[in-house]
Amino acid sequence: MPVVKLTTDERKTLVEPLKNNEWELVDGRDAIKKKFEFKDFNEAFGFMTRIALQADKVDHHPEWFNVYNNVEITLATHECQGLSMRDVDLANFIDNIYKRH
Amino acid sequence: MPVVKLTTDERKTLVEPLKNNEWELVDGRDAIKKKFEFKDFNEAFGFMTRIALQADKVDHHPEWFNVYNNVEITLATHECQGLSMRDVDLANFIDNIYKRH
Repeated sequence: MPVVKLTTDERKTLVEPLKNNEWELVDGRDAIKKKFEFKDFNEAFGFMTRIALQADKVDHHPEWFNVYNNVEITLATHECQGLSMRDVDLANFIDNIYKRH
Repeated sequence: MPVVKLTTDERKTLVEPLKNNEWELVDGRDAIKKKFEFKDFNEAFGFMTRIALQADKVDHHPEWFNVYNNVEITLATHECQGLSMRDVDLANFIDNIYKRH
């Protein structure tokens, strides 16, 4: 099944809750981004490693920037040039492990 | 011993060879950056993980961006607001594992 962009309804029910949880729409792209802060690099890279394992398992990968204890993650789907269900799922996975870190 | 910026001589003998190996000076900052490309995300993140272990060991961390099989790394030293021997050492470590990947 091809990966398709989220519908207007899906954006309301699935992306709005993410926006209430500090995800932002990216200017000029159909993508979302969020900043995460940790105690130190070790904690930040541990978080990234958990995401990397999940990302490779589901074959959907983040765009991310890290410097020391900060991680900024952007999510979008290459195949459909915008937000798909894969981004919603990965964002929720990320929020879930961040909440418990 | 406080971390100090590289001298002019050190830049000639230590940074020039890095520039000949695809490291570039960053505009407007005393820093160097380089792009690395891999077969896929798994290979790219494996590379990042080896750098992360080294970085945390020597307490000198990269600024880096990754999307899928691409990694862009910027090195500078926060304590001296510019390039120090720590950046030269980490750049050489990175080039060494990249060469053998």
